[in-house]
Amino acid sequence: MSKLAYNFRQGEADGAASMKELLGGKGAGLAEMARLGLPVPPGFTLTTEVCAYFYAHDKTLPPDLSEELDAALTHLGDVAGHSFDDPDWPLLVSVRSGARASMPGMMDTVLNLGLNDNTVGALAKKCGDERFAFDCYRRFIEMYSSVVLGVAHHEFEEALEQYKERRAIILDAELHADDWRAVVTLYKEIVAEHKGVDFPQNPHQQLVGAIKAVFSSWMNHRAIVYRELHNIPADWGTAVNVQVMVFGNMDDNSATGVAFSRNPSTGARELYGEFLINAQGEDVVAGMRTPQSISEEARLTAKSDAPSLEATMPAVFAEFKAYAEKLEAHYRDMQDMEFTVERGKLWMLQTRGGKRTAPAALKIAVDMANEGLITRDDALMRIDPASLDQLLHPTVDPEIGHAVLTSGLPASPGAACGEIVFGPEEAMELAGQGRKVILARVETSPEDIGGMHAAQAILTARGGMTSHAAVVARGMGKPCVTAAVGLRIDYEDQSFSVAGRRFRKGDMITVDGSSGQVIAGAVKMRRPELTGEFAVLMGWADAARRLKVRANAETPMDAKAARKFGAEGIGLARTEHMFFEGERIVAVREMILADSADGRKAALAKLLPMQRDDFKELFEIMAGLPVTIRLLDPPLHEFLPHSDAEIAHVATAMGADPSKLRKRAQELSEFNPMLGFRGVRLGVAFPEIVDMQARAIFEAAIAAAAETGEPAQIEIMVPLVFSKAELDLIKRRVDETAQAIEAETGLRSSYHIGAMIELPRATLRAGDIALTAEFLSFGTNDLTQTTLGISRDDAGAFLGAYVAKGVLPADPFVTIDQEGVGELVAIGCERARKARPNVALGVCGEHGGDPASIDFFEEVGVDYVSCSPFRVPIARLAAARAALRRKG
Amino acid sequence: MSKLAYNFRQGEADGAASMKELLGGKGAGLAEMARLGLPVPPGFTLTTEVCAYFYAHDKTLPPDLSEELDAALTHLGDVAGHSFDDPDWPLLVSVRSGARASMPGMMDTVLNLGLNDNTVGALAKKCGDERFAFDCYRRFIEMYSSVVLGVAHHEFEEALEQYKERRAIILDAELHADDWRAVVTLYKEIVAEHKGVDFPQNPHQQLVGAIKAVFSSWMNHRAIVYRELHNIPADWGTAVNVQVMVFGNMDDNSATGVAFSRNPSTGARELYGEFLINAQGEDVVAGMRTPQSISEEARLTAKSDAPSLEATMPAVFAEFKAYAEKLEAHYRDMQDMEFTVERGKLWMLQTRGGKRTAPAALKIAVDMANEGLITRDDALMRIDPASLDQLLHPTVDPEIGHAVLTSGLPASPGAACGEIVFGPEEAMELAGQGRKVILARVETSPEDIGGMHAAQAILTARGGMTSHAAVVARGMGKPCVTAAVGLRIDYEDQSFSVAGRRFRKGDMITVDGSSGQVIAGAVKMRRPELTGEFAVLMGWADAARRLKVRANAETPMDAKAARKFGAEGIGLARTEHMFFEGERIVAVREMILADSADGRKAALAKLLPMQRDDFKELFEIMAGLPVTIRLLDPPLHEFLPHSDAEIAHVATAMGADPSKLRKRAQELSEFNPMLGFRGVRLGVAFPEIVDMQARAIFEAAIAAAAETGEPAQIEIMVPLVFSKAELDLIKRRVDETAQAIEAETGLRSSYHIGAMIELPRATLRAGDIALTAEFLSFGTNDLTQTTLGISRDDAGAFLGAYVAKGVLPADPFVTIDQEGVGELVAIGCERARKARPNVALGVCGEHGGDPASIDFFEEVGVDYVSCSPFRVPIARLAAARAALRRKG
Repeated sequence: MSKLAYNFRQGEADGAASMKELLGGKGAGLAEMARLGLPVPPGFTLTTEVCAYFYAHDKTLPPDLSEELDAALTHLGDVAGHSFDDPDWPLLVSVRSGARASMPGMMDTVLNLGLNDNTVGALAKKCGDERFAFDCYRRFIEMYSSVVLGVAHHEFEEALEQYKERRAIILDAELHADDWRAVVTLYKEIVAEHKGVDFPQNPHQQLVGAIKAVFSSWMNHRAIVYRELHNIPADWGTAVNVQVMVFGNMDDNSATGVAFSRNPSTGARELYGEFLINAQGEDVVAGMRTPQSISEEARLTAKSDAPSLEATMPAVFAEFKAYAEKLEAHYRDMQDMEFTVERGKLWMLQTRGGKRTAPAALKIAVDMANEGLITRDDALMRIDPASLDQLLHPTVDPEIGHAVLTSGLPASPGAACGEIVFGPEEAMELAGQGRKVILARVETSPEDIGGMHAAQAILTARGGMTSHAAVVARGMGKPCVTAAVGLRIDYEDQSFSVAGRRFRKGDMITVDGSSGQVIAGAVKMRRPELTGEFAVLMGWADAARRLKVRANAETPMDAKAARKFGAEGIGLARTEHMFFEGERIVAVREMILADSADGRKAALAKLLPMQRDDFKELFEIMAGLPVTIRLLDPPLHEFLPHSDAEIAHVATAMGADPSKLRKRAQELSEFNPMLGFRGVRLGVAFPEIVDMQARAIFEAAIAAAAETGEPAQIEIMVPLVFSKAELDLIKRRVDETAQAIEAETGLRSSYHIGAMIELPRATLRAGDIALTAEFLSFGTNDLTQTTLGISRDDAGAFLGAYVAKGVLPADPFVTIDQEGVGELVAIGCERARKARPNVALGVCGEHGGDPASIDFFEEVGVDYVSCSPFRVPIARLAAARAALRRKG
Repeated sequence: MSKLAYNFRQGEADGAASMKELLGGKGAGLAEMARLGLPVPPGFTLTTEVCAYFYAHDKTLPPDLSEELDAALTHLGDVAGHSFDDPDWPLLVSVRSGARASMPGMMDTVLNLGLNDNTVGALAKKCGDERFAFDCYRRFIEMYSSVVLGVAHHEFEEALEQYKERRAIILDAELHADDWRAVVTLYKEIVAEHKGVDFPQNPHQQLVGAIKAVFSSWMNHRAIVYRELHNIPADWGTAVNVQVMVFGNMDDNSATGVAFSRNPSTGARELYGEFLINAQGEDVVAGMRTPQSISEEARLTAKSDAPSLEATMPAVFAEFKAYAEKLEAHYRDMQDMEFTVERGKLWMLQTRGGKRTAPAALKIAVDMANEGLITRDDALMRIDPASLDQLLHPTVDPEIGHAVLTSGLPASPGAACGEIVFGPEEAMELAGQGRKVILARVETSPEDIGGMHAAQAILTARGGMTSHAAVVARGMGKPCVTAAVGLRIDYEDQSFSVAGRRFRKGDMITVDGSSGQVIAGAVKMRRPELTGEFAVLMGWADAARRLKVRANAETPMDAKAARKFGAEGIGLARTEHMFFEGERIVAVREMILADSADGRKAALAKLLPMQRDDFKELFEIMAGLPVTIRLLDPPLHEFLPHSDAEIAHVATAMGADPSKLRKRAQELSEFNPMLGFRGVRLGVAFPEIVDMQARAIFEAAIAAAAETGEPAQIEIMVPLVFSKAELDLIKRRVDETAQAIEAETGLRSSYHIGAMIELPRATLRAGDIALTAEFLSFGTNDLTQTTLGISRDDAGAFLGAYVAKGVLPADPFVTIDQEGVGELVAIGCERARKARPNVALGVCGEHGGDPASIDFFEEVGVDYVSCSPFRVPIARLAAARAALRRKG
C-alpha cells in the first residue's frame, strides 16, 4: 500500500486539487489552498485507500497506518508548535470525512478531539476562558460518545435538560463554567454506565477511535441512501481529514461562515454568503440563529439590520474576498467556501465547486467564458444538459413550502396544476370549457391520447419512465408523473386515495414532472424565461457538435416547438398518433373490420385526405428540413375498443355489428403485443395501408412544395423490420405509388426509404438491410425491450430493484445499456456502413435525448439523434459535449 | 451459355448421374443407364440452364438452341435410324419434364410427337396396325392441343363421347381404325375452331412448341404449390427430355410397368412392382385397370390370379431383374424404375432413388450396410431423422380411407382418438373413469396441464408450432394439432363446428399430430414397433456423433421415456410444471398472495416436501446422469385465476378474500408477460423461492443417492439472466442453502450452477456470465422470440405469410434462424469459452430436437442438445449426421 497520510499546512502540501479520488473533495481542497498559501489550519488526510482496506479487512486499519499516523501527528505537532500532551497548550483536532463527491451531513464528524480531564484545564488557561474550555469538553464527550462509542445522543440531551431543570435554567448561555464542569461529570457517568468503561482519556486512542468511526459512517444508512440517490459508487470510499481545531466560538472577535464566489441562485458576479459571530460551523447549519450577510451589498438587498462581515470585520472581509477571487480564478469555477475567524484571524476550512441553480450555471458559464476565465468549450462542459429542462418548463417555486402527497417517477418535466379528471373524454370536455385539468389514470393507453392532449399534466399509478404515458407526455412536452407511490385510483368512485387522503374529481392538485412530486392544491409556478445566455450557449454548442439533432414530432404544435428549439428536421413522425381523432378512428376501425382488401381500401380512402393534410402541414412547417415519416406501427387491436360497454358504444356509433366488432377485437388480441402483428408485418399483410400512406405523403409533399417553394425532404421509414426482404416488399409498393402519382400529375417527388432498426436481428442484418435502406434509424426503445427481454410497461415490478441492486447501472430505457443494446447498435452501424458507405444513421428512441446515451452515439458515430421537441436543446448541448469529450 | 442439349443412347451419353442439377433427375438417370449399357430409347436432354434462360428472357428460348436442337435431332435420327420426315418409318418422340427433385405429375408431357396426317399412315404401315396408329394420333392431338395450344381437355372428351353416342358405342376398345380416323378429324376441327389455325403438321414446329410448353409448366399453379410444400426452390427450373417413343400398347407382347428394387413399404429385399400388358405408362397411373405383380412371389403374397411378369414374359423378367440389381448396386440405393416392353423388347425409361416408408428406409439402410453395399456412415446419412417420428408414435393407418374434417399444424406427432372434452377438469374426470378423451381448446394455458396430461391428444383452434399446447404436448409425447383451420369452439355450448358440422362433448374424433389432420370418428391405428434395425442404427449414430443428447423432462414418465430413448441426462426440468397439481397450486397461490417474505416462506414450506419428492424421483430415474433443474420461470400471474368466476371459485377453495385475489391478479397482470416479471427476476425479488427450490434439490439429491448408491449429478439452471450480477445474486442463495444443509446433515452435495441464455443481451454478455456460470444452456425458443421480436403465441397472424413469401426460409421456432439467432448463439459460445474454456454449452430450446438446427449446433460446437423425450432418437441420429457432414 502506498502513502496513507498526506500532510498540509499553509504554504505546502503533499496533496493537490487533482488528487480528489485519493484525498476526497475536502482533503484535495485543503491541500490546494495550502499550496496556494491560504491560511489553512494544518493537518493531514488519510486516503480513500485506507477506507478501501478498512472494508476489505473486516473494519480494521492497515498495519502500516499506526506508524504513518504517528509520523503525521509528530509533523502536525512540529507545524502547530504543540502536541496532544502539551501541558500548556494541548493540541486539539477535528476529524472529518471527505468523499470524492460531496455528501453533506451524511457521515460523522468529531470535533475538539484531544480534550480530557487534564487538557481541558490547559485549554482553559491558554485561552483564558474556563467556561469555553468545559463547554468544548462536554461537546466533545457528547459527540465522541455518540459517534464512536455508540451511546445514544438523547441520553446526553436528557441529562443536560435535567441539570438545567434542577438549576431552573432556561438557556445554555446562562450556564457558567462550573455548570459545564458538572455536566462533564454527568456525561462521563453516562458513558461509564452504558459502556462499562471510562470515557477514553488518551488522545491517541481517541483519534484511532474517531478515524474508525468516520470510516464506518461511510456505510451508515443515510449515506447509503444518499449514494443511491446520487449514483455514487459504494467502492469510492471516504477520506478522513485530521486538522488542528480553530474556534469561531471563542469570543465576539471570532466568527464562522460560508460563502460562494458568485450568486448560486442567479449566477450574478458577487460574493454571496452568510456568517455568525461567536459560533461554530454547526450553528450556521442548525439555523438556531439568523446568519448575517457577508457583503454590505447583499445586506442592503436583503433589507437586513444585522451588520455584514464587510462592516463588522472589514480587514477579514477584504482578506476573504481576495481569497475568494483567487480561488475562483485558480479553479476557474465558482467556489463554495467555509471559513472561521478565531480571535480576528481568518482560517479557510474548505473550498469546492459551488452547487448552483440551472439558470445560475448557465449565466456563470457564459460569463466566465466572456470574461476569458474559461474557454467556450469549458463553458459547454460546465452545463449539465439535463439541467436545461429547468429552463424550458414551468417549475414549482422552490421557495414556497408545499404539501407533497407522494412522489413517482419524473416521467416528463415541467409542472402544472389543475382539476383532477379520470377519463380522456372528461379531460377533453372540461378543457373545451377552458378549464385546466390533470388526467389521472392507472396507466394510459393509446385511446387516452386525446385526453392527454387536453390535460395540463398526466399522473399515473403504474408505468415506468418509458411507459406509454411517459413517452407520449414527453412527446407533447406535458408534465407527467408515473408510478406515483401509494396512489390508488378508483374509476368507479371517480376518486383516488394517497397518503391517507381521498381526492375527488374536480379537486385541485399540482404535478411536478421534473421532481416527480404530486402536491395537494394549486402551487405557484415559476415560468421559464429563456435568457440571452441560453441562446449564446446553444450557439456555441451548435458550433462544437458533429451530431445532428432532429425531433420526434407529428402534430403541428410539436413540429413548431421542434423548429423553435433548433431541431434540424423530424427524425420520427409516428403516423398512428394521427389515427385516433374524431372521424379518423371510425375510418380506421372500418378498415380493421373490413373482410377484404377492397373493404380496407374503401376505408383507407376516407383516411387519405386527412393523412395528406397532416403531412402537408408537417412539410410546410419543416420546409427545407428532412421529415421522417414512419409507416403505421402499432398492432391493430390498439384501435379497437375492448370492454363490452365500449364495444357496444363504438358499434352503435359506427353502425357496425357489435358481435363482429367483438370477434375481430378478440382475433386481434395478443399475448405479447410488443412482439406481435405490428410494424412492417402490417404492411406485408395489408399492403393497401402502405399504398394509402405513401400516396398521402407524396401528394402532401407536392402540395407543400407548391406552397413553400421548397421541395419537401421526404424520408419514409419502415418500422420493425428484421430482414431486407420485408423492406423490399414495402419499398416496391412505395415506388409503385410514386410512379403512379408521377403518371397522374407529371410531378416526381424525390424521397428516401429507410428502416427503423429496433430488433436484435435487424442490427445483425443491418448490412443486408442497408442494401435497400438509404437510412437506418435505431429505435432504441424497442431494441432495449427485446435485447434485455424487458417490457417497458411491465418493468415497474422489478426494474427499480435491478438498478438499486446494481444489476443494471441505470434504467436502460433512460440511458442506453451500452454493454448490450449499445453493442448491437455499434454492430448495426458498422455493418450498414460497410454495405452502403453513405448510409445515414440515426437514433430515434428516447435515448436520442439522453446526454449519457448521446455520448455513446457520438462514439459509435451515428449521424443524428432525434428526440422529443423539448429535449432538442438538451441534445444539442449533449452532442457538443460528446464531441468535445471525444476530441479532448 | 454452355452446351444446351445432352445426347444419350444405349452404351453412351454426354451426361451422367452426377449431373442432376443440369439434366434433372430423369435426364441424369437416363444418361447413367445409357452409360451402363442398359437399353434406353435414344434421346437428348435440354438442360435446366435453358429453363433459366427461358424465364429470364420473357419465355423465349436461347438463340443458340435452334442449332443445337437441329444437331441433336440429326444425331437422334442417326442413332434411331430414322427421322421426322422418314416416309416409311417416321420418328416419334416423347417430350417430358425432369426437374432436379422429383415432382410427379406436376408438369406437362407430350407423347407421340411427330405424328401428322402423313406420318400417321407411315406408322400404320410400319407397325401393321392402323387402329393403333390413329389412336396414337388422336392421343397426340388431344395432349398437344391441351398442353401446348391451350385447348381445354374436356372439348376433346365431349367430342369423343358424342361420337360414341352417335355410334352407340360404350367402350373405347370397340372403336375401330376408321372410328379413330374420324375422331382425329373431329379433333382437328376443334383445334381450328378454338385457335383459328390448323393443327400444326410440321414435327419441328411441334417439337419447339412442346419444349416451350414443358418449360412453361414449371410455373403452373400445381407445380408452384408442390414446390412450396416440398421446399423446392423456384430457380432450380426443369430440364426437358426428348426421347424416341417406345410403345407398351402396341400389342399383347407389349407392356409397361414400374418397379422398386426392394419393397418400399417394408424394406424387404425383393423386386416389388406392377405392370400392365398392352398399355402405356399413363394407364398404370390412371388406375383404370388392375396392374399385375412383377414377381411370382409377390403375386402369391397378394393372392392374385393375374399372372406375374415373371410368368408371362420370363425372359423380359430375368433381364429386368438383372438391370434392377445392377442399378441398385451401381447407385448403392433402392431404385424406383419405369420400363416398357415393346413387342417383347425391354426398354428402361427411368431410374431414380425410390421413395420409401420410414420403417423401410431404416431396414434398407441397415441391410445395405450389413450387405457391404454402403458404409455405416452412408446408412446414417440415408435416414431422415424426422422420419423416425413415424417409428415412435402410433400412426393413422394410411391404407384406410377416412373423413378428414380439417387440418392444422402437426404440432406434436402421433395419432390418437377419443371423446371430445372442452375443459381440463372434465378431461381428468373422464380419464379417471378410464375413458379416452381428446382435449379441445381455443388454446391452452398452464392451467390446462392436468387436463392435457389426462387427454390422449390435444386439439386447439389457435397457436403455432411452438405455442403452449405444442410445446407441452411434445414434452409429454402426446399428439397435438394446433391452429386447426376453421375450427370454432363454443365453450358455453360444449361443442365445436368445423367443415359445416357440429361436434359435441363426447363425440369421437381422431387427431393425427404427425400430419396435422383431424378426422371424424375413431380411426384404426398402427402401433409403433421398434425393430432391431432401429437399435442397430441408433448404435451406429451414437458411435458417430460428438454432440451429447439430453431430454427436456420433469415428470417421472417423461424421465423414464427419456432414458428409454437414450437420453444422456436431463437438460431441462421445468420446475413450474410441478406447481399446478392438486394442493400444490393452492400453496403456490398462498405464496403469491402473501404480503411478506415470512408469509411467502410459510407457503413455500408446504411446497418443499412435494418439490423434494419430485426431484428425488427424477434423480433416481436418471441415476448416474446429469439432471438440469431450472428454477421457477413463468410470471406469477400464470398461477392465478383470471375470470371473476374462477377467482370466486379459487378464493372459496383456499379460504382467501376474493377481492384480494383479484387485486393481486390485476397487479401481476402484464402487457407483455414474455418480457415481464419472470425468470431470474422472480428469484432476485423473492429469494425465498430460490431458497426453497435449492433446499428441495439438495435434500432430494441426498435422499436419492442413499437409494441408488450413486451421487446425483445436480445442475441448477437460472432462467432469463442477462447479466453476471443476477446470476451472482442467485448463486449466493444457492451456495448458502448448500452450506446450511451441510451444517444440518454433514452431507455435501456437489453441484453446478449455470444460466439459461435466452435473451440477446445474455449472448453478448456470455463472457461475463460464464465467469460465474459453469454451464450455459441456450434457450433458443425465447431467444428467437426476442431476437426476431416475434411472440410465438401471436405469430399465427403473420408467420405463415412470412415463410410463404420467402421473408424467412422456415418457421424460426422450428428451425433455428441461423442469420439472426444463430449468430447470437455463436457469439455467446465464443465469448463463454474465452472466459471459461471448460464451460459446458447446451441448447434446450425446441431447436435441440430439430435436425437442421442440430447441424448448426454441431458447427458452432455446443456440447449437448436437449429435447423432448420422443425426439431424443431423432436428435441422436441428427447429431451423428451433422458430425459426419462436418467431417466429410
